[in-house]
Order: sequence, then C-alpha cells, then structure tokens
Amino acid sequence: MAWNTNLRWRLPLICFLLEAAMVILFGVFVRYNPEADPHWEEEKRQHNISSDIENDFYYRYPSFQDVHVMIFVGFGFLMTFLQRYGFSSVGFNFLLAAFGIQWALLMQGWFHSFEDGHILISVENLINADFCVGSVCVAFGAVLGKVSPIQLLIMTLIQVTLFSVNEYILLNLLHVKDAGGSMTIHTFGAYFGLMVTWILFRPNLEQSKERQSSVYHSDLFAMIGTLFLWMYWPSFNSAVSKHGDAQHRAAINTYCSLAACVLTTVALSSALQRKGKLDMVHIQNATLAGGVAVGTAAEMMLMPYGSLIVGFICGIVSTFGFVYLTPFLESRLRIQDTCGIHNLHGMPGIIGGIVGSVTAATANVGIYGKEGFIKAFDFEGPKSDWTSQIQAGYQAAGIFVSLTMAIVGGAIVGVILKFPLWGDPADENCFEDEVYWEVPKDEESHMYRPEEPALKPVAS
Amino acid sequence: MAWNTNLRWRLPLICFLLEAAMVILFGVFVRYNPEADPHWEEEKRQHNISSDIENDFYYRYPSFQDVHVMIFVGFGFLMTFLQRYGFSSVGFNFLLAAFGIQWALLMQGWFHSFEDGHILISVENLINADFCVGSVCVAFGAVLGKVSPIQLLIMTLIQVTLFSVNEYILLNLLHVKDAGGSMTIHTFGAYFGLMVTWILFRPNLEQSKERQSSVYHSDLFAMIGTLFLWMYWPSFNSAVSKHGDAQHRAAINTYCSLAACVLTTVALSSALQRKGKLDMVHIQNATLAGGVAVGTAAEMMLMPYGSLIVGFICGIVSTFGFVYLTPFLESRLRIQDTCGIHNLHGMPGIIGGIVGSVTAATANVGIYGKEGFIKAFDFEGPKSDWTSQIQAGYQAAGIFVSLTMAIVGGAIVGVILKFPLWGDPADENCFEDEVYWEVPKDEESHMYRPEEPALKPVAS
Amino acid sequence: MAWNTNLRWRLPLICFLLEAAMVILFGVFVRYNPEADPHWEEEKRQHNISSDIENDFYYRYPSFQDVHVMIFVGFGFLMTFLQRYGFSSVGFNFLLAAFGIQWALLMQGWFHSFEDGHILISVENLINADFCVGSVCVAFGAVLGKVSPIQLLIMTLIQVTLFSVNEYILLNLLHVKDAGGSMTIHTFGAYFGLMVTWILFRPNLEQSKERQSSVYHSDLFAMIGTLFLWMYWPSFNSAVSKHGDAQHRAAINTYCSLAACVLTTVALSSALQRKGKLDMVHIQNATLAGGVAVGTAAEMMLMPYGSLIVGFICGIVSTFGFVYLTPFLESRLRIQDTCGIHNLHGMPGIIGGIVGSVTAATANVGIYGKEGFIKAFDFEGPKSDWTSQIQAGYQAAGIFVSLTMAIVGGAIVGVILKFPLWGDPADENCFEDEVYWEVPKDEESHMYRPEEPALKPVAS
Repeated sequence: MAWNTNLRWRLPLICFLLEAAMVILFGVFVRYNPEADPHWEEEKRQHNISSDIENDFYYRYPSFQDVHVMIFVGFGFLMTFLQRYGFSSVGFNFLLAAFGIQWALLMQGWFHSFEDGHILISVENLINADFCVGSVCVAFGAVLGKVSPIQLLIMTLIQVTLFSVNEYILLNLLHVKDAGGSMTIHTFGAYFGLMVTWILFRPNLEQSKERQSSVYHSDLFAMIGTLFLWMYWPSFNSAVSKHGDAQHRAAINTYCSLAACVLTTVALSSALQRKGKLDMVHIQNATLAGGVAVGTAAEMMLMPYGSLIVGFICGIVSTFGFVYLTPFLESRLRIQDTCGIHNLHGMPGIIGGIVGSVTAATANVGIYGKEGFIKAFDFEGPKSDWTSQIQAGYQAAGIFVSLTMAIVGGAIVGVILKFPLWGDPADENCFEDEVYWEVPKDEESHMYRPEEPALKPVAS
Repeated sequence: MAWNTNLRWRLPLICFLLEAAMVILFGVFVRYNPEADPHWEEEKRQHNISSDIENDFYYRYPSFQDVHVMIFVGFGFLMTFLQRYGFSSVGFNFLLAAFGIQWALLMQGWFHSFEDGHILISVENLINADFCVGSVCVAFGAVLGKVSPIQLLIMTLIQVTLFSVNEYILLNLLHVKDAGGSMTIHTFGAYFGLMVTWILFRPNLEQSKERQSSVYHSDLFAMIGTLFLWMYWPSFNSAVSKHGDAQHRAAINTYCSLAACVLTTVALSSALQRKGKLDMVHIQNATLAGGVAVGTAAEMMLMPYGSLIVGFICGIVSTFGFVYLTPFLESRLRIQDTCGIHNLHGMPGIIGGIVGSVTAATANVGIYGKEGFIKAFDFEGPKSDWTSQIQAGYQAAGIFVSLTMAIVGGAIVGVILKFPLWGDPADENCFEDEVYWEVPKDEESHMYRPEEPALKPVAS
Repeated sequence: MAWNTNLRWRLPLICFLLEAAMVILFGVFVRYNPEADPHWEEEKRQHNISSDIENDFYYRYPSFQDVHVMIFVGFGFLMTFLQRYGFSSVGFNFLLAAFGIQWALLMQGWFHSFEDGHILISVENLINADFCVGSVCVAFGAVLGKVSPIQLLIMTLIQVTLFSVNEYILLNLLHVKDAGGSMTIHTFGAYFGLMVTWILFRPNLEQSKERQSSVYHSDLFAMIGTLFLWMYWPSFNSAVSKHGDAQHRAAINTYCSLAACVLTTVALSSALQRKGKLDMVHIQNATLAGGVAVGTAAEMMLMPYGSLIVGFICGIVSTFGFVYLTPFLESRLRIQDTCGIHNLHGMPGIIGGIVGSVTAATANVGIYGKEGFIKAFDFEGPKSDWTSQIQAGYQAAGIFVSLTMAIVGGAIVGVILKFPLWGDPADENCFEDEVYWEVPKDEESHMYRPEEPALKPVAS
C-alpha cells in the first residue's frame, strides 16, 4: 500500500464532514444562554438585575478577546520560528483551532451547560472552548512539521473529547480548582502531544535537520507569538475566575510570575552558553513558563512574592529543559519534541499543579476571611465539610488523573495517526511548507530555495 | 500635458488643507457628549445614574479598541502580501484611515449626533468613524498598487461623505438594522471600490505582473492582518449593538460563523488545486467572509447553527470567487481587483444583507419575547405598527440602496481620479513602493532588487 | 584593564541578584489591595458597594492590557527597524521591562500605596508600573545598539528609582495633573536617555554605520510596533484618569490628536524630500508625537479641536526634528540618538507639558461645571483655595522639575555605565545582534551576512 501527500480529496472531505456534523449538532443542541437571549429583559426583572452592565459579557469579554489572540496569534506565530514552516504553523493552527472551538462548545456544553436538552452558550463558553483548544495547540507543538492537516484534525477531534472528559472529572468529580488550566490544559496537552510524537517516532528525521532551525526573520515572527502570549497570560489565568477579587488577584499573580520568569530565563540562557550568548529559543519559550505554572494557584492567595518564586523557578527549570532534557528525550527516549513543549507546558504544568495543591493546603480563614474562604474553594453544599487539606489532596489527584488521561489519550491518537492514510510527509520533507502549500518562489529574496530537489512522496 | 509621481508639493498641500479644514470644522462643530463632559456628575444626578460604570465608555471601549486594531493593523497588514508594496499597504492605509476617521466624525456627527448646533461625540462616534473608514479600506483593496496617496485621500473624502449619506438613508429613513455593516460597510465599500478600479482600468498592467504576487515573508505579514481581523470580528459586529443580550449574542454568532468559514475555505482551497495544496490567498481572505456575512444578522436571533451555515456557505462562495470569478472579472469585465475584495466583501456583503432580511422576516414574539422583540427591532414610536415582514422588506431595500449608492459614488470618484493630476504610477511601476517611498536597498538580502531599471514617469 | 562582551557570568549574576532582591522585597512589602483580596466580600458590605462590577478591575483592566501591549510589543517592535538588531531590540526591551515593572511596583508602591507597612497593589499599580517602565523604554531608544543588557538593567534600576521620586514630587508635592505622562514619562525618559547617550558618546561610531539603517522587512516589523503604539495610545492616556467622563474624554482627545498628527507627518515627510518621497522613519515615529503631546491635557477640557491642533503641530515639529535636529545633535552636540527619541518624546513631551499648563490656566467653572471643576483638579482639601492659574503655574514647574531630574539622573547613569565592566560592544560591533545572541546563519536568505569579519572585543 502506498500513500502520498496529495490531499486533494481527503482534506476537503474531512473538512466538509466535520463542519456538516457541527451544523447538525449545533442545530439540535446549541441555544443562547439567557444572558445572550432576547428574553434578557425578563431575566433581568426576574432576578432583580438592575443594569445591563451586570451581563456576564461585560465581566469577561475583554479577557475572552485576549485569550482568543493567544490561541490564534500567540500559538500560531510562536511556531513560525522554523525557517520554512511558517505557512503551516500559522495556517494549520488556524484550522485546528477553528474546528476545535466548535467541537469544544459541544463537548464542554454537554458536560457543563446542558439544560432541558439544550446547551446554553455565553461568553464563558467561548473562553472555555478557546482554553480547550489551547491544549491541542500545545500538543501541536510536539508534532509540528511532521504531520498532515488531516492528522491534526483527527487529533483535535479526539483530544478535545478527552480534554472535556478529563476536565469534567477534575472540576466536577474531584472538585479541583484550576482556573488557568495548569493541569487541564498544559499538563494534559503536553503529555498528550509527547505521547503522540513518541508513537510517531521518525528514526530518519535528521534528513530534514537543515530545515529544523530558524532564520533571522522567522525568529522575529515567533517573538510576535511569544509576546502576545506573555502579555495576555494574566487574562488567560483570570478569564473564568469568579467575579471581583478572584479575577483581579489572578491577573496580578500572573503578571508577577511572568516578570520574574523573564529574568531567570535570560540568566540561564546566558550561563549555559559557552560565550554567554542568549538563545532565541529560550527567550521565545521559557519566559512563558511562569504563566503556565501559576495557572492553578493564580486565583488563590499565592501572594505576589509567591508568584515571583514560581516564576523564578520555572524560568530555570524550563531553560534547563531546553538545553539538556530535550536532546536527551530525543536521543534516548525517542521523543521528538519539535517546539520543546515538555519544557514550556509539561514540567511547568506539573509544577503548577503542585503549587496549586500546596497553596490550597495552606489556605485558612485567617488569610481569606470567612466568606472569602468559602467562596474561593466553594466550601458549601456538598463540599461544606471540606478542609484545605482535603482540597489539597484532590488537587494533587488532579495532576495524576490529567497525566493518565493524557498518556492514554495520546497513545490512542498516536496509533490512529500511524495508519498510512493521512498524507503525512516523508522524513526528508518534514518541516517544509511546500508539501501542503503553494509557496511563492522568492527567487530574488533567496529566502526560499527553489533549487531544492522536488519533494518525493514515499511508498511504504 | 505631462504628469509625474513626484508628490513633493501636491501631497503636503492636500494634507495640510484637509487637516486645516478639520481643525476649523471641529472648532465650530465638535463638542463632548455629556458622558465625556465634566458635567457628567450633574448628568448622573439628573438621570438617576447610580455609578460611573454606567458610562457608555465601559460598555463599548474594549470593542472600540478591537475595531481600531482591525482598521489599522488588520486591513493594513492584510494588504502587505504583495512583495514590494508593504510600505504603501500599511502606510497609505494608515494615512487614509487617519484622515477618514476625522471626516467621518463630522459627517456622521451631522447626521446622528447633532444637537443645538454641535456634534456631541462619545466612544460610539469613534467606533462608527472607524466603521465608516473600514469601507474605504475595503475599497482601497481593489485599487491597491495602482493609485497615489493623493488619489486615496480624494477617494476617502468622497467615499466617507457618501457612506454617511447612505448610512443615514438605511438607518434613519429605511429603519434598517445593520449593526455589523454587511450592507453599509462591506457591500457599499466593495462595489464602490470595484467601480473605481473599473474606471481606472489599466490595459497594460501585466507590465507589473511580476510584482503582483507575494514572497514567503510577505505572506506571513499578511497573516498578521488576517488573524487580527478574524479574532476581533466578534467585536466589530457587536460594537454598536444595544447593551446586554444583543451585544452578547452578536459576538457569539460572529465567533461561530467565522469558525465554520475556516473549514470550508480550507476544503475548497485544497479541492480546487491540482495537487490539493492550499493557497495562502484563500486562507488570508476567504476565512473572513463569514464575519462579513453575519454583519447584519449577528445581533438578531440567527442562532448558533444559523451562523455556522452562513460561515459554511461563505467560505465556499468566497474561495470559488478567488479561483474563478476574479480572473473572469479581470479578463472579461476589465475589473482589476487587486485584493479580491469582491470575494471577501462584495458577495459576502450581499449574502449578509439577505441573511439579515430573512432573519428579520422570521422574527416573532415567540422567539424574542414581547419586550425583546420590540427592543430588537425598535418596534415602538413611529415603527410601533411594523411587522417582521415589513422590516424584512426594508432590510432588502437596504441592499439595493447601498449597491446603487456604491456604484454611482464609485463612478464619480473613478472619473475624478482619472484626471492626470494626482501622481499615479505608470503601468510598469505599479505595486512598487519605490515610487512613493525611500526604500532601503537591501543589497545583502536581495529582498529588493536594486538593479531594477529606474522608474520612468510617463507622459500622457 | 581589558573588557569583553562575553557576559556568561556577569549577566546571569546580575539577573539572579536583582530577581532574588525582588522576591525578598515583595515578601516583606507587597500585599493585595482590598479589591484583589478575598476580604473583598466584607469590603463590599462595609463600603456599601452593590456589585462586583464596581471593582476597579473592570474599570481599568482593558486599558491595562492595551498599555501592556504598548510597552512590550509597541516599544519592542518599534526598535526592530535596524537591520541586524531585531533580537536585541525586542529581547532587551523584554528583559528591562520585565525587571522594571517589578522594581516600579515597589518604588511607586512605597510612595503611593503604602499602608501599615505594606504596599497594597491592584490593577492601577500594574498600569503605573508599566508607565514607569515606558520611560525606560524611551531612554533605551537613545542608546539602542550601543549598550549591553547589563548596562540596560543598571539603567533601569536607577531610572525607575528616579522616575518614582520625580513622579512623587510632581503628583504629590506640586499637585500636578499628568495622567498620560507627558512630563513624568516622556520628557523625563527622553532627556534622561539623551543625557546617557551624550556621556557615552562614541567618536568612532561611523564604523558601524552600515548597520545603523533598516532593510525592507525590518521596516515592516517596526510598523507593527508603531501601529500598536498608535492604536492603543488612547488607552495609555486614559488608563489612570478618574472613572467616568475623565477617562472617556482622555480617550477621545488622544484619538483626535493622533489622527491629525498622521496627516502633518506625511505632509512634512514628503515636503522635505527632494523627490517628495515618504521616509519610513517619520511614519514610524512622528505619527506618534500627537499622543505624547496630549498626555497631560487629554483628560482636561482640551476640546477635540484643541487636540487636533496639538497633533497638527507635533507632526510638523517631530518630522522637522528627524530631518534637521537629529543630525545637528549628533554632529555638533555629540548626542547620538539612535531612534530619534528627542523628536518623538523629548520635544512633544515638553509641548505636552506646556499644553497641559495652558489648558489648566483656561479652566473655569463655566466650562467644567462646579462639581466637574473641583473633581478635575482636586480643588478640595489642601487645594480648596487653588485657582486655575495656580494650577497652571505648578504644571509649568513640573516641566522644569522633570527636566532637571532627567538631566541629573541621566548624567549619573551615564557615568556609571562608562565603567569598563559592563560588556558593551566595540564601536565596530554596535547595532549587531551577534554580539549577545546566537544568530542563525541564514546562508540561503542572505538576510544576515556570514562573511562578516568576526567580532573583535576591544581592549581599553
């Protein structure tokens, strides 16, 4: 059996099928939340809401837009660092995220917003859908350059499904707090992606080695992604926190953690290079680890100095990972992690889960105030007899559940993607836009080498 | 009579004259709306407003900033796809928009915010001015690379004027709903621009053909524009909707439509290429058609699945347009549409008008609730005896009025721009920054060819 | 004594020391403002606050994020115009700003948010920290390409300290109004940076002259910075204004001023070039001068036409500065101002101070209303017997205090940076990323010349 990279019928077919399914499922299930429904006037009267400004839209829409930018520009451009894979980085990220948010609206909707046979969506659902897709963007980083858009759509379909199940277990069964998604988004997304790339291991990938690096301007494009991720991360970690102090505090903590992370990343990057020179890969990635690692605890009483400490540590851990761990994973464990997501999302995600658990364990009425304590951890109703320690235990359990789900899910996806049907590129054509894109020839600019030998489809 | 492209005295003169006129007209007419005036404290007391948060600023400012980014970064960078026209794309868009918003504040102000001899401006006026200029940016896409900045300023002056007249007819005389501007902005802007470029037809434009394409990095710059347009479009379509549910719903619908549009665009782009490869032009443009086409109906009860259907269709229509219609328009109808605005704004704009009319026709008290129905369509005062069907009829009429105004207005502007006074480039110098800009020589990078023959001014 | 540019131990050391100091000082001093503290529920009850939406977070967070983008993407990318200094422009700006905001939270906190031994931070502190760092980014523009990251961290440490002292003198002792920072940020930052670069004068800088210019794509990257600065400047000038009309008015005035500034910049840029061609340097920089120059008066009753006049003038002054003054400063006064900050921040900053003083002088109860007048200038408590004229006098005094502080502070920093310990580049290696960064070789793209002679460390 032979396969090739001409997707002319396969890609359109899967896109149409998926989108048609979305239309039907949305038609059957998706309606507006009362806050987005014209009955809002009656809703206001019934619930004694005095003003339109109390509509959740005004609490969350600015954060939503920041998160939206992170998913599409942030992740998309962060991955443009490869010299000849910019179209695919931005374009495939665009494709998978556009599909993923629709499927996430359904999956998360069934679990969290289902009433009387309908999913009622509001701006909070949009944010959560973006979050869910964020975990797919993370996993995309591991397989970047080595898979076809069809494979990405399949991965998105399954990963979003499992993300939603995992999120439901954590938030609703284990009653874990994870507003910024250290566990649900980053840990899950990273180990999911690493598992996929492990199964898709390519022993002859060094045939594409000369393209698996950056050129001067591709590194600058990637910095657009880095900076929008870095700047808007406070919105990410606070977007779905409770109104008022929690949202406010989550933004402050994330701001602090990220700032500290930049300094230790620069320090390590310089210290680990023979001539003390900085490495763009570290600046592009490790500076963000501080945002990942306060994802769980940002809305808690982590304290500004606590946030600095977390950022401090993560800048170091993440940069170390890029220098020593990524080559080790590739050479010894056969894990080819194109973007180094283990350093940016994997380890910092686990650290974030631990920080969240520890911060929860130390919570008490003295620090939070009586009302604040109950509100922060929902210690009412079924949880009214919980203590900080119980919460902390469940938080810790959340890490392991996320890891397990990620590894099992990633394995399933990896095996499915291994079928020789999905048009993935040959080893010598990885990290190359020309496989899936009409690429301008740039004879004058020499930014793209037209003398490159024609791409060969491989027979298996 | 001879003309040349040295704008040394003409461009400064027109800029100074226009800006001086703005200063004088602003001095005579423009004042602050009570919400931006220090008498706000008294205003609050008089109208029993309990909190500063009720100031319209807090309802609309985040959306305003998103729209602002769309106009300046979105449209500006979207047009940088041409290999040697990046400075002009971003720079001229900057110039025309900066002038246009001032003139739009006046024109729209006279029609909509005029009280006791003064135009009272607030954040809503800023949004509407940006919207108005958006239609000029659309038209700019049709003539991109073939006109001088002087011609663009003249076009802006007249187009903003006619836009405001058309908008007044639609919104105030026909009582049409068009919050996201499918008719007023996109249909009007697109056919206006197409008419201008039709009249400015250049039979020998193939002399510049080698520059009328992209290079690798110019396509990535263009994706910055695409993504900011795509991400912020929910803000665009909801920015001037009524407070509360309408704004909320408009954002949700636009988000859905755009997501669906990406999948069908990718599907068609791949299906229509021999080897199934994706075309950056489609990804950059057709993915946005879904936002255009829900511009009218987004705030109505289009339903999430309705939005998906609209996006689904528009991705197809728009990509088809790029592949088959644009070449046809150029070769048979002598319409040289540089950016393919007919595919992104023209057809989707008309579809948007139709969708709006149909959605209005199906509206009823059952769906909207009694209060919601009246509020959504302003069925009170002079419109208190209107039905959905009447509204739908007027909506449909709005499409034709917009088309007529666009075609007549575009013809007038086209004729004026044909005068050999405005410094437009010769056919062989189109799509070339060097005509109007000091361009760095880039000998090393070869991104710009210094060996190019000197630009020749043409004699007529 | 010899020095070299290998920062392997020096840069990590200073980063770790500074960050460790931040952790300790934050641990001792920094706590959450009641609006970001879990006691918020009690706070609401005590102060009779009816809704979470009254939390300052919702008034200011969208503006904060816009300011944040200006500091990191705006300033960072604005400086990428140099052909081989993009990594350093974005990267060092990232580093100094990440450190600076932490130190600014402390310094400004001690002066303005200190209660019972603790600094209580909220979103307003984050904005002010970003503002403070903005003045360092301005100064960075003067020394761009000629200093090491260690020197930048030292400059940041001292400049943030002096900024906070100067700000305290202006706002608390002189009771000056300066919400957008014409004096505190721009005047202070610009003359500080000019003083530093004057002391660091390099007589042989022409050895790096061929790199002190742009290439085609570096100019486009810089436009990303320009546009985000331009678009978000209304948020900058309104971010810390009083709730309600003041914030609303500041945004409107800045919008107007910036729009006018674009037209006169284009006019002058064309008029001052022999062939009437536009210069990217002017478009990238002088278009922003209008935002700087309404920094003080934007929240006052400057009136929309007043804003246009200010923008009109500043576009002219700033462009003139680039064409005539910058070369003069370099050749006669030995001030090597890489980015021309004197034209963008220096002169417009002083104009802004003057405009603020004049606008304050003409303020009266007739224009503002009785309550509005008192609220706008805090004419109550210790200032209850102040008149507009007194206010205007103090405003004017603020300009001179800022200038004095900037010149003295810049001199101190300049002298410290002159010590041959900090790893600054030799004259022939200025404006060159390779000194401090691992730079990809780009053989194919020729965007970076690998045949360049190896960088030589100099002995003094």
